Amino acid sequence: MPKDVITPRATDYNQWYLDIVREADLAEPAEVVRGCIVVKATGWGIWEMMQRELDQRIKATGHANVQFPLLIPKSFIMKEAEHVEGFAPEVAEVTRAGGEDLTEPYVIRPTSETIIGHFYSRWIRSYRDLPLLYNQWCNVMRWEMRTRPFLRTSEFWWQEGHTAHATEAEAEAETLKILHEVYADFVEQVMAVPVIRGLKSEKEKFPGALRSYCIEAMMQDGRALQAGTSHNLGQNFARAFDITYTDQNNTVQHCWTTSWGVSTRLVGALIMTHSDDEGLVLPPRLAPTQVVIVPIYKNPEERARVLEAIERITGDWQGRLRFKVDDRDNLTPGFKFNEWELKGVPVRLEVGPKDVEKNSVAVARRDLPGRQGKSFVPQAGLTERLVALLDEMQTGLFQRALAFREQRSATVRTYDELKQQVEHGFAWAYWDGSADDERRIQEETRATIRCIPLDQPEAPGACVYTGRETTRQVVFARAY
Amino acid sequence: MPKDVITPRATDYNQWYLDIVREADLAEPAEVVRGCIVVKATGWGIWEMMQRELDQRIKATGHANVQFPLLIPKSFIMKEAEHVEGFAPEVAEVTRAGGEDLTEPYVIRPTSETIIGHFYSRWIRSYRDLPLLYNQWCNVMRWEMRTRPFLRTSEFWWQEGHTAHATEAEAEAETLKILHEVYADFVEQVMAVPVIRGLKSEKEKFPGALRSYCIEAMMQDGRALQAGTSHNLGQNFARAFDITYTDQNNTVQHCWTTSWGVSTRLVGALIMTHSDDEGLVLPPRLAPTQVVIVPIYKNPEERARVLEAIERITGDWQGRLRFKVDDRDNLTPGFKFNEWELKGVPVRLEVGPKDVEKNSVAVARRDLPGRQGKSFVPQAGLTERLVALLDEMQTGLFQRALAFREQRSATVRTYDELKQQVEHGFAWAYWDGSADDERRIQEETRATIRCIPLDQPEAPGACVYTGRETTRQVVFARAY
Repeated sequence: MPKDVITPRATDYNQWYLDIVREADLAEPAEVVRGCIVVKATGWGIWEMMQRELDQRIKATGHANVQFPLLIPKSFIMKEAEHVEGFAPEVAEVTRAGGEDLTEPYVIRPTSETIIGHFYSRWIRSYRDLPLLYNQWCNVMRWEMRTRPFLRTSEFWWQEGHTAHATEAEAEAETLKILHEVYADFVEQVMAVPVIRGLKSEKEKFPGALRSYCIEAMMQDGRALQAGTSHNLGQNFARAFDITYTDQNNTVQHCWTTSWGVSTRLVGALIMTHSDDEGLVLPPRLAPTQVVIVPIYKNPEERARVLEAIERITGDWQGRLRFKVDDRDNLTPGFKFNEWELKGVPVRLEVGPKDVEKNSVAVARRDLPGRQGKSFVPQAGLTERLVALLDEMQTGLFQRALAFREQRSATVRTYDELKQQVEHGFAWAYWDGSADDERRIQEETRATIRCIPLDQPEAPGACVYTGRETTRQVVFARAY
Repeated sequence: MPKDVITPRATDYNQWYLDIVREADLAEPAEVVRGCIVVKATGWGIWEMMQRELDQRIKATGHANVQFPLLIPKSFIMKEAEHVEGFAPEVAEVTRAGGEDLTEPYVIRPTSETIIGHFYSRWIRSYRDLPLLYNQWCNVMRWEMRTRPFLRTSEFWWQEGHTAHATEAEAEAETLKILHEVYADFVEQVMAVPVIRGLKSEKEKFPGALRSYCIEAMMQDGRALQAGTSHNLGQNFARAFDITYTDQNNTVQHCWTTSWGVSTRLVGALIMTHSDDEGLVLPPRLAPTQVVIVPIYKNPEERARVLEAIERITGDWQGRLRFKVDDRDNLTPGFKFNEWELKGVPVRLEVGPKDVEKNSVAVARRDLPGRQGKSFVPQAGLTERLVALLDEMQTGLFQRALAFREQRSATVRTYDELKQQVEHGFAWAYWDGSADDERRIQEETRATIRCIPLDQPEAPGACVYTGRETTRQVVFARAY
C-alpha cells in the first residue's frame, strides 16, 4: 500500500481527515442514505472503548441506564418554545407505518428531552422520588445539509443523560458533576485531549436550557471542537411537560431538570488531536488493541519457532495488555506494519529468528514514527516495560496536545488582534458584548464564543469589542 | 407493598407476566408511541448483561462490530421477493425530513440484510476479502398490531450478524457455529434456559433464507418461545444485491451469506422460564446484582456497628461477586426484602446486631422463597460459600426448567394425541406432511412446527398426520 494514500495535513487538512477516516477503516459515507455513515470495525471498536469508559463514570456517579422510544409524537417537539426553534427544522418524520398513513406523525428523536419529560411527569409524584438519574445510549437523527464523518452526520450515536431534581442548586450541582467527573475526566485522562471547561454564551446555549456548560478542545488546525455539553434546563421542560412533585410541606412544585451528552463526534476529536500524516494515532488507554505483534519469518520452521517465542512472551499479558498477534500468513511484514500504523495501534512488536536467538524484541512506538520510535529490548521484564511505555505515551500525547494548544492560544486586546488570532487558534478576550455583537463578530470572522471558561483570573480588563470594563474573559475560535 | 400486586400464574398467566414486567421495573408500555415500550432500569440492566455475555462469544468466534444506518431506501426492501412479502407490510416510513418531502422514502430498518447487502457488494472483490464477519447491536422497528412487552413490540433491540462466504459449506458452518457456540451456549449456560436446537420448516423460515435454524425454549405455560435464529441465506441476497467475488480461477461467483439475531425478546423468555408468584427470578450468572445485603438496626449506634461489619464481610468481594449494600435509611427492612424479591436478586443477606455479635449472617435464596430458602451461616468462609451457592442455584434453575420441559413433553402417535398434547406442552411427532398440512394443523390447533430438532433418533415411524413412513421427527407447540 503506497504511503501517499494519506494527504499530508499541510497540503489539505480536510482531505487528510477524510483520508484517515477511510484508510484506518473508521467509517464510510453511506451515500444511499442522505448524510449518514457506516461506522466500520476500527471506528466502532473505538466508540465501544469510549462507551465502556464513559459508562463506568456515569454509573459511578449514581445513574442507571434505561431506554426510551426512538419515535416521538411530533406535537411533543412543539411544546417548548426554544426547543421547537432549534430542532423542528431538522427532524425526519415518520408519516406512514404498517401500510397506513398516520393521523399524527412521529419524528425520529433528534434528542429526547420531550419524550423523557412526558414520562418523568408520570413517574414523579413526591420529593421522595427525586432525584431521578437516568441515562441512555442510542442513535439520534438530525437532517444535516453539510456533513462530515463523525463530526456532523444525520444519524449519530451518543449517550444522553436526563435527570430531575427538587431544587435549582441540586440541578446545577448535577450539571457540573457531569462536566467535571464524567466528561472532562474521560476526555483528558483517557482520550488524552486537553479541554477548557466553560459556560456557553446565551447565543450558543442548548435550545431550551437555562445554562449550558461545555468542554472545548483544540484541533490540529487551531479550530475548536465542542467535545461534550451539560445543560441545566431550569424549569423550562418541567413547565412544558408538567413535571411536578409534592414537597415536604405538601406544596406542588415544578422539578429542575438537566440533560447532558457526548457523541460519536468524539471519534472526530480524537482523530484531529493526535493523528499524523502516517495515519491514526490512538492513546493507549483508549486503544482497543494496545500492542500488535508481527512475527517475521522466511519458512515454516522459522514461523513455528517465532510463534512459540511469541506465545511465551505474551504468556502473562492477559488482563494487563490488550494485544493481538498478527499471524496472517498471506501478508508481508511490511504490509502489516503499514496497516497497524494506519489504524493507530500504539505499540508494534516485531519478533524474528534473530530476536528469538538473542532473547530480544523490536519495539516500535506509534507516537514517534520511523527510526526515532524504534528500539530493541530484552524479553526479560518486557511486560513491565510495555506497561510503563504505554503510560508514558499516554502522558506524552496529552502533554503534546496541551503544548500545541498553549502555543496556538493568545490573549487579545483589540478586535484586530482577535481577527488575526482566530485565523490559527484560540483568542482569549475580555467580553462584555451582547448576543448581537457576537453575531456580528461571527459574520466578520467566522469565530464564535466557544465558552466562558470556569477557571479564569478575576482581574478586570476592557471588552475586546465594546471597550467596557469587565472581569469576564471568553474564548473565541472558529469551530467544527 | 401488598403481595397481591402480582397475579398468581394459576389465576391468569398473561396478567402475571404483565405484573412482573411492571413491578420488577423491567418496562412500561410507551402508549404515546404505538406498540413501543420504555425499558426501565432493571430491564435494561439485564439486557446489558445479556449483551456483554453474547458480545464476548460473538467476538471470540471471530466477528467484529460495526454499525449500518437506521434508514434504508424503500426500494431496497423490494429487491428480494420473499423478503418484501415478509417485511413490507410492517415497516415505518420516513417521507419528510428537514422540512421537505423526500423524493424516495426511507423505511426504518425492520432488519438489515438489504442495506448491508448493498455495502457488501461494494466491499467484496476477491476471495481474499472473504469471509466477511460483522455484527451490529441496534434498534429495529416492525409495526406490530398486538404487542406485549419484550415479546412483541414495534421497536426492539437486538444484535444482527451478517456474514459473507465463498462457499455454501462455509456459510452453513457459520450458521451452525452461531447456533451452537453463541446462542445455545449463552441461553443454556448463562440464562439457565434449556433449548431445543433445530431447523425451521419451510413455512416458518426467515423470508429470503435458504435454511433457518433456531433454538426453542418452553415457557411455564407449556408454550414455545423462539429464543434465537441463525439463517443460511444461500445466494438469495447475494443475487438481489449483486454480492460477488472473483475466485482463485478468476471466475466471478455470487457469495453465500448468513444472518443471525437475538433480541430483547430474551428478557421475556427469562421472565417466563424462572419467575414465580413473588416476582422475577434471575439466574446468578445473568444477575446484574447477585447478592444484596440489607442491614437491620434500630438506632444510629446499631446502624454504624452493622455497616462496619458489612464493610468487613464484603472486603474481598470485588471482582468475585456482584453485590449491593442497601443502606437506604428511610425504608424498612421488610420493604427492602420485598423490593429485591420482586426484582429477582438471587441472594439476600441480612445483617443485624445479633449477627454481628455471633459472627453470622442470614442468607435467603431467591429460588426457594420463604423459610425453605433461609439459613444462618458463619461469616468465616462466607465468600466461598456464596460463590458455591450461586453456582448451585445456576445449575438448579437449569435443571428445574429442564425437568419441567420433560414433564410437559410427549411423543404423539395420532393427530388426536397431538391436539391434546399442545394444550399444555410440546408434542414430538413423526412428520412427512406438506406446508399446507402444517397450515391446516395450525388453524385447527393453534400449534406450529417449532423446529425439526437436530438431535433426533434415526428410527423410522409413521407421520402423525399423513401416516406415511418417515425418519424425521418434529416438535409441535403453540408459540409466543
